[in-house]
Amino acid sequence: MAVRSTIMDTNSFRPEMESALDPQTRQLTRERAVLGPAYRLFYRKPVHLVRGRGSHLWDADGVEYLDVYNNVASVGHCNPRVVEAITRQASMLNTHTRYLHENVLHYAEDILSTMPDEVNRIMFQCTGSEANDLAIRVAQSYTGGQGVIVTHEAYHGNSALTSKLSPALGTAQSLGLRMRMIPTPDTYRVEIAGQVANECSPEVFGGWMADQLAQAVADMKRHGIKFAAFLADSIFSSDGVYPAPVGYLKPVIDKVHELGGVFIADEVQPGFTRTGDAFWGFQRHGVVPDLVTSGKPMANGLPTSLMAARAEVLEPFASSVPYFNTFGGNPVCMAAAQATLDVMRDEDTMGNAKKVGGVFMKALKEFQAEHACIGDLRGAGLYIACEIVKPGTKDPDQRKALDILESLRGNRVLTSVCGRYGNILKLRPPLVFSEDDVDWFSTAFGKTLKECGE
Amino acid sequence: MAVRSTIMDTNSFRPEMESALDPQTRQLTRERAVLGPAYRLFYRKPVHLVRGRGSHLWDADGVEYLDVYNNVASVGHCNPRVVEAITRQASMLNTHTRYLHENVLHYAEDILSTMPDEVNRIMFQCTGSEANDLAIRVAQSYTGGQGVIVTHEAYHGNSALTSKLSPALGTAQSLGLRMRMIPTPDTYRVEIAGQVANECSPEVFGGWMADQLAQAVADMKRHGIKFAAFLADSIFSSDGVYPAPVGYLKPVIDKVHELGGVFIADEVQPGFTRTGDAFWGFQRHGVVPDLVTSGKPMANGLPTSLMAARAEVLEPFASSVPYFNTFGGNPVCMAAAQATLDVMRDEDTMGNAKKVGGVFMKALKEFQAEHACIGDLRGAGLYIACEIVKPGTKDPDQRKALDILESLRGNRVLTSVCGRYGNILKLRPPLVFSEDDVDWFSTAFGKTLKECGE
Repeated sequence: MAVRSTIMDTNSFRPEMESALDPQTRQLTRERAVLGPAYRLFYRKPVHLVRGRGSHLWDADGVEYLDVYNNVASVGHCNPRVVEAITRQASMLNTHTRYLHENVLHYAEDILSTMPDEVNRIMFQCTGSEANDLAIRVAQSYTGGQGVIVTHEAYHGNSALTSKLSPALGTAQSLGLRMRMIPTPDTYRVEIAGQVANECSPEVFGGWMADQLAQAVADMKRHGIKFAAFLADSIFSSDGVYPAPVGYLKPVIDKVHELGGVFIADEVQPGFTRTGDAFWGFQRHGVVPDLVTSGKPMANGLPTSLMAARAEVLEPFASSVPYFNTFGGNPVCMAAAQATLDVMRDEDTMGNAKKVGGVFMKALKEFQAEHACIGDLRGAGLYIACEIVKPGTKDPDQRKALDILESLRGNRVLTSVCGRYGNILKLRPPLVFSEDDVDWFSTAFGKTLKECGE
Repeated sequence: MAVRSTIMDTNSFRPEMESALDPQTRQLTRERAVLGPAYRLFYRKPVHLVRGRGSHLWDADGVEYLDVYNNVASVGHCNPRVVEAITRQASMLNTHTRYLHENVLHYAEDILSTMPDEVNRIMFQCTGSEANDLAIRVAQSYTGGQGVIVTHEAYHGNSALTSKLSPALGTAQSLGLRMRMIPTPDTYRVEIAGQVANECSPEVFGGWMADQLAQAVADMKRHGIKFAAFLADSIFSSDGVYPAPVGYLKPVIDKVHELGGVFIADEVQPGFTRTGDAFWGFQRHGVVPDLVTSGKPMANGLPTSLMAARAEVLEPFASSVPYFNTFGGNPVCMAAAQATLDVMRDEDTMGNAKKVGGVFMKALKEFQAEHACIGDLRGAGLYIACEIVKPGTKDPDQRKALDILESLRGNRVLTSVCGRYGNILKLRPPLVFSEDDVDWFSTAFGKTLKECGE
């Protein structure tokens, strides 16, 4: 099983694919040279989008796509209530948190009300990277340690600090000297005492994971590094999406605390009702984090993020080191975040994620019964992973996964892949995804599997 | 001369000042406990703003203030063209740079056209901190070095990496082991061969500064650190604003290159026409940077920033390490940035900064002639520093500067202080500041000086 060296090898356009493009698309991809070589475009034939609404997107030729990938537009592309809130506040005032403003205070109270009582302080930034970067510093200040543990394919941000905690970036990005990785909680492949993990109890699987963590902390100690934090998103998104057995994080977080560390719940992926059974991913597992971070789905597309904390964990850092984020918590971003949260409540996106996620999973299981290339299906709410493997084995089939992706694009469904081997379809649509959307997906997926020789 | 230990000692509200507040303001300051101890409010009596337009702001009681501080609202608070651009794009589509979109490409070309030809690549982030964080990594990758030089009171961001390059954060924030500081280019106090710096030629003063830099690089070398970058904003804003003698950076940047480093021009402060004589601060000094960063004034309040680079400097990093910023360069932020740039051109903010900045400086000089507490006035365009000192000396008078600040607030003018001793009024209004605004300021300043016993 070849392991990718960087995420470049996954879903992305490369200049040598240029000849297959129509003139306008080719022109736009050429113009992107100005952005330098770090930018990647999705798809062998990149998509040129011009309009969005709900869970649907339209390209420059008027072709309509179903969006089964973008969690940023959490309450739907161009949600009119969010747009209206942005317009109203942008027309009124947009300053910063060194003047008093209700928006940041009201939203702070409102969003904290969705969290455990122990998590009672919150600070605002603009990106998930900024939130994680700050959370690490807060955790290190509180524990007096430096050591951070993440999973083997984790992605936690693009800042200097968080990049060094993001093995998913590939081997060209050096990892921190004081970080350690524990294995991906791959419930499809890990076996414990002869039993596949997804058939284990949460206690057994969580116990296995807690052991991995304890070993990593022991190794840190051997190198003179004091353990500070376990940083994880509770659905292990870039590792490949591992939502169950629900509760398996509990023994892990207990171990984190026993060993003197704190748990930073990175809720960029599972948070904001996506999993259908809780507002936050960590709540599904019955754990209380010391720090919570989120970003992407928070303000439906405006750059907005948060770092929430237990007061006593925040105190040592925040009472000594000045931190000011010019745009973080500004009235316009807070208005967008508030409108997003209001829509989540009023339209019960949690209920919708549960209901439509269930219908979606059922439809996928029907495909699985017919197609041996679908090795595993797992998910929570509107976060579903579909593993493409070589029939009769658990060997990842990245080539087929990428073929499926391109074919789905041709059949007007947008998504992408994740996981160490880039063979896992990541199905993570806007939270307003409907049963009709599932039908749209199913029709396209059926055609795609046929096109891919299934 | 007492040096502040952290920026907490400057312009900020503290809970013990609560009794002087009206009930509503008191209530709001109390509610801010939820944000934790890192947040600071301006003023002993914080301002509760609800509305803005042009260079004017209104509080909850309808009191109108002149804004002489906020560079984020660069083309004026709630500029209707920017609001309209945001609304239009937010109603149409807001995704990310992994799909093709014209906005990011058109803005990229447009903003690069304001820079030297050599700076021909650009990447987008959400905050100035993110831009500097990335620029450092790019510089280190290109040079193979780690060492970064900043000035003694520099502020370059709030990420883990940039905080360690920001001595202005105070002594509780540890600095990087591989960074060195050179003295503030304090043209009011530094003497070279018996001559005050602001009377020296740019060559002589720049030569002095280049010597300081060479010494810092030599010290790095002695510690086994390879020099990577000189990171500076060309107006040295948090150091205290030192815009002249124009050209003094030239010998410094020549020395940076001679010693194998790159120059990162942090244009968060001087960029976007503020200095009245160039679009970018570095252009005033006749130097070409290797990397350019900016943020605050770029999109009139939406979280948007940039890192531009010479292609060959960007290459080693960007062709090997994946970098994706979810919100960076998104269609809405780019629409706001484009509208801001369009307004800057159409309303000639550069010309306005030059003209009104000149009128502003003239008015201030008249006050200086009458008031010995005004020790030095220096500026470029709409970026003016007014040093408050003990009469007959150059000793900073922070207490009086803070009294002036509070009195100005009472007289409906908002600004703040900067510099090592917190005694320098930082006058940095929106770029649409008018001659009427100068009159408003002058009336308030006259009253204030009287109230402060001048």
